[in-house]
Amino acid sequence: MLLGNAIVGQSGGPTSAINATLSGVIRECAKNSAIDKLYGMLNGIEGMLHGKIIDLTYLYNDESKLSILETTPAAALGSCRKKVDESELEKIFDFFENNNIRYFFYIGGNDSMDTVNKLSKYAKKTAYDINIMGIPKTIDNDLPITDHTPGYGSAAKFIATTIKEIATDCEVYTKKAVTIVELMGRDAGWLTASAALPAYFGGVGAKLIYLPEIPFSNERFLNAVKAELDKHPSLVVAVSEGVRYANGRYVGEGTQSGKVDEFGHKYLAGTARVLEDLVRREIGCKVRSIELNLPQRCSAHILSATDIEESVAIGSFAVKSAVNGECGKMAIFVRTGNYSIDFGLTDVNNCANTVKLVPNEFINKEGNNVTRECLEYIAPLILGEKEIKYENGMPVHLSIK
Amino acid sequence: MLLGNAIVGQSGGPTSAINATLSGVIRECAKNSAIDKLYGMLNGIEGMLHGKIIDLTYLYNDESKLSILETTPAAALGSCRKKVDESELEKIFDFFENNNIRYFFYIGGNDSMDTVNKLSKYAKKTAYDINIMGIPKTIDNDLPITDHTPGYGSAAKFIATTIKEIATDCEVYTKKAVTIVELMGRDAGWLTASAALPAYFGGVGAKLIYLPEIPFSNERFLNAVKAELDKHPSLVVAVSEGVRYANGRYVGEGTQSGKVDEFGHKYLAGTARVLEDLVRREIGCKVRSIELNLPQRCSAHILSATDIEESVAIGSFAVKSAVNGECGKMAIFVRTGNYSIDFGLTDVNNCANTVKLVPNEFINKEGNNVTRECLEYIAPLILGEKEIKYENGMPVHLSIK
Repeated sequence: MLLGNAIVGQSGGPTSAINATLSGVIRECAKNSAIDKLYGMLNGIEGMLHGKIIDLTYLYNDESKLSILETTPAAALGSCRKKVDESELEKIFDFFENNNIRYFFYIGGNDSMDTVNKLSKYAKKTAYDINIMGIPKTIDNDLPITDHTPGYGSAAKFIATTIKEIATDCEVYTKKAVTIVELMGRDAGWLTASAALPAYFGGVGAKLIYLPEIPFSNERFLNAVKAELDKHPSLVVAVSEGVRYANGRYVGEGTQSGKVDEFGHKYLAGTARVLEDLVRREIGCKVRSIELNLPQRCSAHILSATDIEESVAIGSFAVKSAVNGECGKMAIFVRTGNYSIDFGLTDVNNCANTVKLVPNEFINKEGNNVTRECLEYIAPLILGEKEIKYENGMPVHLSIK
Repeated sequence: MLLGNAIVGQSGGPTSAINATLSGVIRECAKNSAIDKLYGMLNGIEGMLHGKIIDLTYLYNDESKLSILETTPAAALGSCRKKVDESELEKIFDFFENNNIRYFFYIGGNDSMDTVNKLSKYAKKTAYDINIMGIPKTIDNDLPITDHTPGYGSAAKFIATTIKEIATDCEVYTKKAVTIVELMGRDAGWLTASAALPAYFGGVGAKLIYLPEIPFSNERFLNAVKAELDKHPSLVVAVSEGVRYANGRYVGEGTQSGKVDEFGHKYLAGTARVLEDLVRREIGCKVRSIELNLPQRCSAHILSATDIEESVAIGSFAVKSAVNGECGKMAIFVRTGNYSIDFGLTDVNNCANTVKLVPNEFINKEGNNVTRECLEYIAPLILGEKEIKYENGMPVHLSIK
């Protein structure tokens, strides 16, 4: 068993549950005798490279702060979008050695697992004794191997709830009206799929669901909208930001600047707006578009208790696994029975830079909704309401930077 | 004291609290001996004109249904956007007479009070014995005389909370970035003013606040953004959809179709998008726009307990006032001390078709924020969290149509 200090960082897009995982790491480091101090990287690996670290040991066993941390949105340590460069590895390992860092925990999505992968390989090559562990997070639920990702359940709960509320709102008038709600998901439609939950459970909700996994067709879309409007005057449609035509062009591209982020992903927005214009032009009824935008990943006032409890637990599990000698692995959820969660490990190679799409059997034949099987997969993840502490009428958040 | 039946309707844009007021009406009708049956208009006065009514007497004393109704968003009876035509008054009063309707309650905004006004005058003219009462609702808080409007507190709580979460999310990166959040409010900036609450209470939040009451200047806006970015890399700006340049043109007009609704109001959207483009072009930093859109009026999963309790109480108060012989009045809130609420009445003439703007003393000298006095006015309205019943991970709503 390695003895020494640990360091933890958060990377990639924030979620409502990434701080719960941080809390799980802190909780386990506090009670694990192999680990002395726990440091936090400010703004992930990028901050660490500039010596921006903080001693988190003061949070050990501070139950009141940790419980607020678990309902604080975004990344309390700050985040970065950076792939580690080979030339930076030496500097990073000098830092580890100088600070007796023997445990490294990185909470992030598929791009972040690339960093975990590189550090693990470098440790092996240089025979520096350190156990390096990736811990998943992403509202997108698009990491392979793990049953689902920490953060997805809370985002899905927010989306399902908001879609239900929007659909209820849209029911109040008798005029034919279409409301198109755009949800996050560049490649994978998991978030958009959750918009089907309210209707599945018998409430008003989104009746048409368009995922990036299925090529989009304006003609099929308009026909489906018309058919739904014949049945009921008010229609809510959920659409992923990343839906594409068969030729690969993004539906939302028309309104975009064509800019890309640091990983070369196209910046998208305005898919629903494009479809709003299409409906107005081709059908001519009242139509409105809504982009749920950032609140999907930061609405920590409505959290899935299941998600938050699992997110804490996977953080603790990753620490225990590292102390047990594991390195270069990502912690995962394994679904058992109906419904409980076990934890497991997978080689981080299996996760870096790959994406888990919504499988074909989760999408209906018409390509405009998800199946019962898909919703039975999602439904347990949004269960339970995490209690939130309020002050002055607003949720209390923890600032640890 | 008039003896007979009552009818209640909901009109105008839905809110998260309009059903709480409906519940208050039902609760008081149930226990008031002057009132026998209570009918509901489906889709307001427009539905009633087509004979679409429902007997609500079955809800009398059904505590479990009423408490769910109080946390159900939108208008449970359906709504309409209709001003009553003089030619329709005879038909309406025939309906009243045939159904022995002696009490008429209309829950709505400034456009709806016009209907209350016309009916009251017609009742007086024809000497038909009926007591007609308006009950305010609007998330916009733009009705005169009343201290504030039922529904505003919950919308403001949602906005303040969401702005706090968005600002927390935007803090995670170190790059200079501007996030522009567009809030509802065509003429009055009350909703946008609530975006200033998180920063007022010492949390991260919106540092610049633009209301429609103050003419907008691109130059002053860009200078203020640059000054804030010099102090801190992450900036959240809140802007009303209705901000206009000194020449009267809407900032968001550039992206609009110029369409107007039935009351001649211009349809607006895209104000934040226009400003996003402006910042990108003129400052060149990372910039994003978010339109909170419909969730502002229907996010009933986060309700101000103060708002919901007051909304129930004003519904009951309106019924008691009508039974006491009042007619042609709107029920109002009167603020006393620090902070409690009394109820009062005002002639509906004072409210029909007029708008209460944010007063000058509530806006700072630079015209880019609100004052402490303004926030002290808003702060008590968002206090308290209404408990929500969940099923399958989503809030339970009552359907009574």
